Amino acid sequence: MSNLGVFRIMVTDKNSKARVGQLHLAHGVVTTPVFMPIATQGTVKMMTCDDLETLGATIILANAYHLHLRPGEKLIERLGGLHKFMGWQRPILTDSGGFQVFSLSTLREVSDEGVRFRSHHDGTEKFLRPEDSIQIQEALGSDIAMCFDDVVPYPCTYEQAKLSMKRSLVWAERCMRFHSRDDQLLFAITHGSVYADLRKENTIQLVDMDFPGYAIGGLSVGEPKEVMFELVELSTEILPEGKPRYLMGVGTPADIARAVALGVDMFDCVLPTRLGRTGTAFTSVGKVNLRHAKYADDPSPLDPNCDCLTCRRYTKAYLRHLFKSGEATGPRLVTWHNLNFYLRLMEKLREAIASGTLRGVVREMMRLFPDEVEEQNESFLAR
Amino acid sequence: MSNLGVFRIMVTDKNSKARVGQLHLAHGVVTTPVFMPIATQGTVKMMTCDDLETLGATIILANAYHLHLRPGEKLIERLGGLHKFMGWQRPILTDSGGFQVFSLSTLREVSDEGVRFRSHHDGTEKFLRPEDSIQIQEALGSDIAMCFDDVVPYPCTYEQAKLSMKRSLVWAERCMRFHSRDDQLLFAITHGSVYADLRKENTIQLVDMDFPGYAIGGLSVGEPKEVMFELVELSTEILPEGKPRYLMGVGTPADIARAVALGVDMFDCVLPTRLGRTGTAFTSVGKVNLRHAKYADDPSPLDPNCDCLTCRRYTKAYLRHLFKSGEATGPRLVTWHNLNFYLRLMEKLREAIASGTLRGVVREMMRLFPDEVEEQNESFLAR
Repeated sequence: MSNLGVFRIMVTDKNSKARVGQLHLAHGVVTTPVFMPIATQGTVKMMTCDDLETLGATIILANAYHLHLRPGEKLIERLGGLHKFMGWQRPILTDSGGFQVFSLSTLREVSDEGVRFRSHHDGTEKFLRPEDSIQIQEALGSDIAMCFDDVVPYPCTYEQAKLSMKRSLVWAERCMRFHSRDDQLLFAITHGSVYADLRKENTIQLVDMDFPGYAIGGLSVGEPKEVMFELVELSTEILPEGKPRYLMGVGTPADIARAVALGVDMFDCVLPTRLGRTGTAFTSVGKVNLRHAKYADDPSPLDPNCDCLTCRRYTKAYLRHLFKSGEATGPRLVTWHNLNFYLRLMEKLREAIASGTLRGVVREMMRLFPDEVEEQNESFLAR
Repeated sequence: MSNLGVFRIMVTDKNSKARVGQLHLAHGVVTTPVFMPIATQGTVKMMTCDDLETLGATIILANAYHLHLRPGEKLIERLGGLHKFMGWQRPILTDSGGFQVFSLSTLREVSDEGVRFRSHHDGTEKFLRPEDSIQIQEALGSDIAMCFDDVVPYPCTYEQAKLSMKRSLVWAERCMRFHSRDDQLLFAITHGSVYADLRKENTIQLVDMDFPGYAIGGLSVGEPKEVMFELVELSTEILPEGKPRYLMGVGTPADIARAVALGVDMFDCVLPTRLGRTGTAFTSVGKVNLRHAKYADDPSPLDPNCDCLTCRRYTKAYLRHLFKSGEATGPRLVTWHNLNFYLRLMEKLREAIASGTLRGVVREMMRLFPDEVEEQNESFLAR
């Protein structure tokens, strides 16, 4: 416990801002750059905890909004907290619910006090204050809690962005004041939409408050990729060297590689699991969409250079048959492959930082996974 | 290959007709009594081949009707046969499609020549002769093929039953004549609905034809349990000692235990997988339906006496949450548990035969899993 919250930088890249670090959390040490598979409702879709351990996931992301609505944090707390409830003893980060209230609930009225919204399950009206989000996350007992924030859409006016940014700042102060679990880190989330001066101002203010870690929020919501990367770069320039940096909701393998080079340490994204469920695989030769008829009698594995459970045993033709037949084994096997691809990518990035070859990996990922508009939307809609 | 089709009886029970046997097939030796998980469309629902190996499945059942319609046996043959297609190198039994044409297709016109029906996928009209079914099963390359039969509903008149039985007999002769793969066994299927004299006559006729194995067909389609067991007993009295006996589509753990005592060697049933997907578990303390509200905060495993992957790690409360949240991990984990329960039951039955304690296991299963009408229907509808 004495090391709790310590972020030790082990290696830095000479040619970029990338670094390999170790973040000490209540349930273990996480080596960064790290990808966190998404367990929104307390499970990574199609995967068991044994699967995630086999794949080498070291931290996963769960969601305060979803778990508050079902089954409720009180029940989870009574059963010993989220780790015990899920059967997962490695670190967990919980998102605060700010983004989900913004993207999933039907009614949404934001005031300085908090957000009034309707549950996307049953339409029940709810009110969530920053303090409520912290109380939920403390009841869940995650290793890292996130500040409750006011998220704006893209595009939004400068005035909207400024108002929401200021509100998120006040809420961050309230979260910090209310937060009391000393085995849980509380990370701040920076805002300011696409307006560089707002982002700069907000980031400086949050850094002054001295959080143990910082997320770059409000990005990957539909803005152009290059704008996003400019703002990420601006942010990592200001954020302290010695604290972990988390780019929320990003992204493709190329996005992650580029952001790592800009000094980002933590990532989460629905793409590997979501695209896995619809039959699209990330592979060493680019994306493979099993719905394509040309794979109907393809006897080769998803990825010729992969030795995961799926690629060792099954052909594209068979996987395609599973999808065509509506068999859940298809989504499971491609999800497995995709998570393996992402987790091995993070290993590769960490090794490349250590060996000074990061630029090559970034270029390779950008070549294999060029930007596609539908992907950004996918990423946006599904968080 | 020299042993192919040999069925060696290793142990017989002094107090019943039960026996432990070893059936030599092209892809390995299967110890009986055996339960065959159902891989209708070329996959056991929610399970990978690795899963099935871990669970200890030694033979699985696939379906000629389904695989003929999608992806087609020609494609599977081109890709090296069903074993290679699925990535499963242990034995496979294929059902002939007779039952599925009867239960799934919309139009169904039976003549002496074969069956005209509409695909349940797209309504395409198809015609299937006994020879076509054998050709499909030979293309698939299963270890055991089944004769194509004419299945009647329950109830049906004596005349209907007689007509269909005679037709199935002629078809069995045609199947036997047409069948040519010498690495594949062809099993006969006995018929006669609930009419003892028809069953007796039919069984004697098929035994005369000297098939390497016999299925008891046309049962578990809605008739009373006691009628079914009387007919099973009548059948195993006539069927030769030295050939494997397969009771198609049966059943609950109690049904299986009782049928084993009557000298049946092979079983398949949708119950463990189908009920697993809807949240009902077979356990050492009876059935557990996770939809029940009382499990919402139950911190105990599905089965206190089970050490399967599911029971070692997860609580009823968590599993219920997964079902309530529509997460596929729920169906997967309960399917895993149920298949484990069935496969361990078969081990227990084999051990009980060897140790002369079979009666106790039968009684225990009958106590834990008393007959429920909806279960028979479930079993009937889902095959």
